[in-house]
Amino acid sequence: MLAGMYVLPRRGFLFAAATTLVTRLSGQQPSRESLIDDVVTANHILAALEIVDAFGHVSIRTGPGAGRYLISRSLAPAQVTAADVMELDLDSKSVVVAGVGDKRAVYRERFIHGEIYRVRPDVMSIVHCHAPALIPFGITKIPLRPVYHNSSFVGEGIPVFEIREAGGDTDMLVEKPELGRALAKTLGNKPAVLMRGHGAVIVGKSVIEAVARSVYLEENARVQAQAMAMGQRVTYLDEGEVKKRSEDPDPYGRAWDLWKRQAATQGSR
Amino acid sequence: MLAGMYVLPRRGFLFAAATTLVTRLSGQQPSRESLIDDVVTANHILAALEIVDAFGHVSIRTGPGAGRYLISRSLAPAQVTAADVMELDLDSKSVVVAGVGDKRAVYRERFIHGEIYRVRPDVMSIVHCHAPALIPFGITKIPLRPVYHNSSFVGEGIPVFEIREAGGDTDMLVEKPELGRALAKTLGNKPAVLMRGHGAVIVGKSVIEAVARSVYLEENARVQAQAMAMGQRVTYLDEGEVKKRSEDPDPYGRAWDLWKRQAATQGSR
Amino acid sequence: MLAGMYVLPRRGFLFAAATTLVTRLSGQQPSRESLIDDVVTANHILAALEIVDAFGHVSIRTGPGAGRYLISRSLAPAQVTAADVMELDLDSKSVVVAGVGDKRAVYRERFIHGEIYRVRPDVMSIVHCHAPALIPFGITKIPLRPVYHNSSFVGEGIPVFEIREAGGDTDMLVEKPELGRALAKTLGNKPAVLMRGHGAVIVGKSVIEAVARSVYLEENARVQAQAMAMGQRVTYLDEGEVKKRSEDPDPYGRAWDLWKRQAATQGSR
Amino acid sequence: MLAGMYVLPRRGFLFAAATTLVTRLSGQQPSRESLIDDVVTANHILAALEIVDAFGHVSIRTGPGAGRYLISRSLAPAQVTAADVMELDLDSKSVVVAGVGDKRAVYRERFIHGEIYRVRPDVMSIVHCHAPALIPFGITKIPLRPVYHNSSFVGEGIPVFEIREAGGDTDMLVEKPELGRALAKTLGNKPAVLMRGHGAVIVGKSVIEAVARSVYLEENARVQAQAMAMGQRVTYLDEGEVKKRSEDPDPYGRAWDLWKRQAATQGSR
Repeated sequence: MLAGMYVLPRRGFLFAAATTLVTRLSGQQPSRESLIDDVVTANHILAALEIVDAFGHVSIRTGPGAGRYLISRSLAPAQVTAADVMELDLDSKSVVVAGVGDKRAVYRERFIHGEIYRVRPDVMSIVHCHAPALIPFGITKIPLRPVYHNSSFVGEGIPVFEIREAGGDTDMLVEKPELGRALAKTLGNKPAVLMRGHGAVIVGKSVIEAVARSVYLEENARVQAQAMAMGQRVTYLDEGEVKKRSEDPDPYGRAWDLWKRQAATQGSR
Repeated sequence: MLAGMYVLPRRGFLFAAATTLVTRLSGQQPSRESLIDDVVTANHILAALEIVDAFGHVSIRTGPGAGRYLISRSLAPAQVTAADVMELDLDSKSVVVAGVGDKRAVYRERFIHGEIYRVRPDVMSIVHCHAPALIPFGITKIPLRPVYHNSSFVGEGIPVFEIREAGGDTDMLVEKPELGRALAKTLGNKPAVLMRGHGAVIVGKSVIEAVARSVYLEENARVQAQAMAMGQRVTYLDEGEVKKRSEDPDPYGRAWDLWKRQAATQGSR
Repeated sequence: MLAGMYVLPRRGFLFAAATTLVTRLSGQQPSRESLIDDVVTANHILAALEIVDAFGHVSIRTGPGAGRYLISRSLAPAQVTAADVMELDLDSKSVVVAGVGDKRAVYRERFIHGEIYRVRPDVMSIVHCHAPALIPFGITKIPLRPVYHNSSFVGEGIPVFEIREAGGDTDMLVEKPELGRALAKTLGNKPAVLMRGHGAVIVGKSVIEAVARSVYLEENARVQAQAMAMGQRVTYLDEGEVKKRSEDPDPYGRAWDLWKRQAATQGSR
Repeated sequence: MLAGMYVLPRRGFLFAAATTLVTRLSGQQPSRESLIDDVVTANHILAALEIVDAFGHVSIRTGPGAGRYLISRSLAPAQVTAADVMELDLDSKSVVVAGVGDKRAVYRERFIHGEIYRVRPDVMSIVHCHAPALIPFGITKIPLRPVYHNSSFVGEGIPVFEIREAGGDTDMLVEKPELGRALAKTLGNKPAVLMRGHGAVIVGKSVIEAVARSVYLEENARVQAQAMAMGQRVTYLDEGEVKKRSEDPDPYGRAWDLWKRQAATQGSR
């Protein structure tokens, strides 16, 4: 298969490709099978850890600088199998392989993925979710701030996307390219963006990072809400600590194997 | 079986019959077996997602405009099987088939179903539950308001039924036709009604909608309580957004299959 | 076995013996095997529903007016089997059968059971637990009040036992007869008593009632705390409603079978 | 194997060696196999009870006064097997056995263990975790206080470690001996120490005590936060009660067997 081999112009920096564990350690570019397996695993992990429910999705870019990404057809994350994974381009259109188009139903909000990959070459994986703990921080003016080391990336800033500014009264869904572009603009160079009255989008330089950030962003929200409810000044991680934490090349590696096993056990649910 | 074939006068509008997924897609009127299967599945889903515990029930109207509905005999939702499903008329009396009456114990609060179906021809399915997260909104004067897209229907208004106004001091149960009528009156044309000191009733134009609204009504309550506890102004979905959302003919379709699978796995509990 | 056949003087009223479902429906006095089975089931239900953890216990009086009760040897509730059930008298001493005493380790707090059975002939079953949601109501001056129909018995009043008044500085355990008597005195004729800095004791005229009240007392605590946190006046069930509810002879019957099944599935944990 | 037989100078008091239940009852020094089994079991219990997630660790000193401890190689607690257990000395370096060093990856924060064992000869087991309920008490000035008997040890005082005082801006990890020493100093003679923006360390005179204290420290945090949120004065256990409770030689024994069984059932996750 040649799909996914198209490469965007390089922008003068190295990618942390690192999608699967093996690849992460070897530095090799992962095989297509391995990438598809990662899409399936990421879906199952996010469902098992209750970051997504029947809705939400996760994608992986096909390679450093590539203008394609892998994502399931429109399906609940817990139900995704390798056969459900499709390849879309940056316009979020399904890729024609050997003259045959893929007619399966795609996620209505696929533009979240395509438009972010277009402007963030460092991003190799994207999660979209509606985790309940995140919603309050999108509908109040209280910013998410980093409560502990595992969610230190929150300290880089988590902006809030107000879809009304881009699209007026909508059905809240990012179902048009221009809404995806507006979302990507609000995201900027940050690790995640909350969506007012909707959910969040989390990005990573690997699927491990995107998934782990999703897990710990949600946990940060719960802990921060609890700490704030206690009615005293809260001490968040400071800038220096956030910076030091960001220098760890692989802060979440150990989690992936565990979550994969948990998802496999719970996968038959 | 001819039961359930009696048809109320049509009222000049089309029904969204759509009870099972197959039917939903084909537009065909579902078979009786398929409707009974949906009653069983809906019971198991609501139990698996902890919207109901040992108590609560769910019914399905036998067809568009029909004056009959299917509901389990008095039983905990997780335990319902096809053999437990009974057919009641709008007076919530069991239907006599081939001269034989159904003597099994019925839910004491079956009038919730009969009286709502009587005045809401658009309603094809009804859920009654006591989900803990909903109770606080029935015993304070704080209205439920829509925190995110999946619960946008909350923006249509969720009234609160005060049983004392209809029946004085009672044992809180809607166990008489007149209490059912009073409840139906408070519900009006809304998607759900809270019951002070008791629980909630949620309706839908299909069983998928009634179940999904139950799930997301409960989630809305949890998220709204959390957002309010954070002590700042909360931005709810506005009227235009609620309206746009209401135009989606099938916002929850993807969830049904997943929940059905989850319920099957957890069904042996 | 003759144990448990000793009968206290009758006090001029009928007992609701009703321990097992079969017995409940037939009105027959349950067999000893059936009572032991109920002790085991009640232990497993309370563990499965997380009312007890490694600690806590449940007992059943051997019959109306009897001066004996059945309770597990000192063991975590989830691990109790029929072989672990012992018979104690109202002094909470193990009963000598055929000249042989039962030397197995008993719960240090068994006096909770003996001393309550002594002064509450209507009580046929007792639960002791440390459910986290109940603790805050024992360590503040906020009384538990009934938020919904399933916990209407809360409206009869849930007193708080301050062990310091009876025993000064203790290790908090009701491990002496006099502490059990003081606890029973605080309980009075109520359905349950909170223990400051410790937990709760819940009683019932049947094991079903004692277990169901434990479940819904805990749920009431969670819902009430949430309702109070919302910062507005809360409308609790009023006296008339509480009274009407108390006239239902079997409000929780449907739950027992479900919980038993849930406990069986989770019993292997 | 001779490893672990090196014995620190005795300091004039007896140890409560008691690592496994058998040993606890017999008073015998446990075998190495039994200690390794305890390390594995403790890891699985902490994961099953959600005190640790993919991160966190637990160690056991090899014997009273020993300058060695057993701990897993760097791995998620739920995944630890006997083959993963390593032996480290008080400098947290792996022990050379028969001339062969153990080259497996060790936890970066192993110094937590070595430096505490060095200055606390009474400590036989140490848990490090990031339980979300504990974080708010480390990032506000609200001290943990004992809400009930099972967490009475909280009344001995739970200090908070501010890593900035010892190391300035760090990545929050105790990954150097001097940070471990600073942490041990803050811990002092207390049962646990919170780590600002990170988690907690809990110690015990046996692995049962360290694990049970971890479980009930977390529960205390949840209950205390709830009680405080109710806006009234909270009555905590007083000094006399804390002292009386501390005289119980084996307050948590019954829990270990249950948790071990729970962990075994959930271990395949």
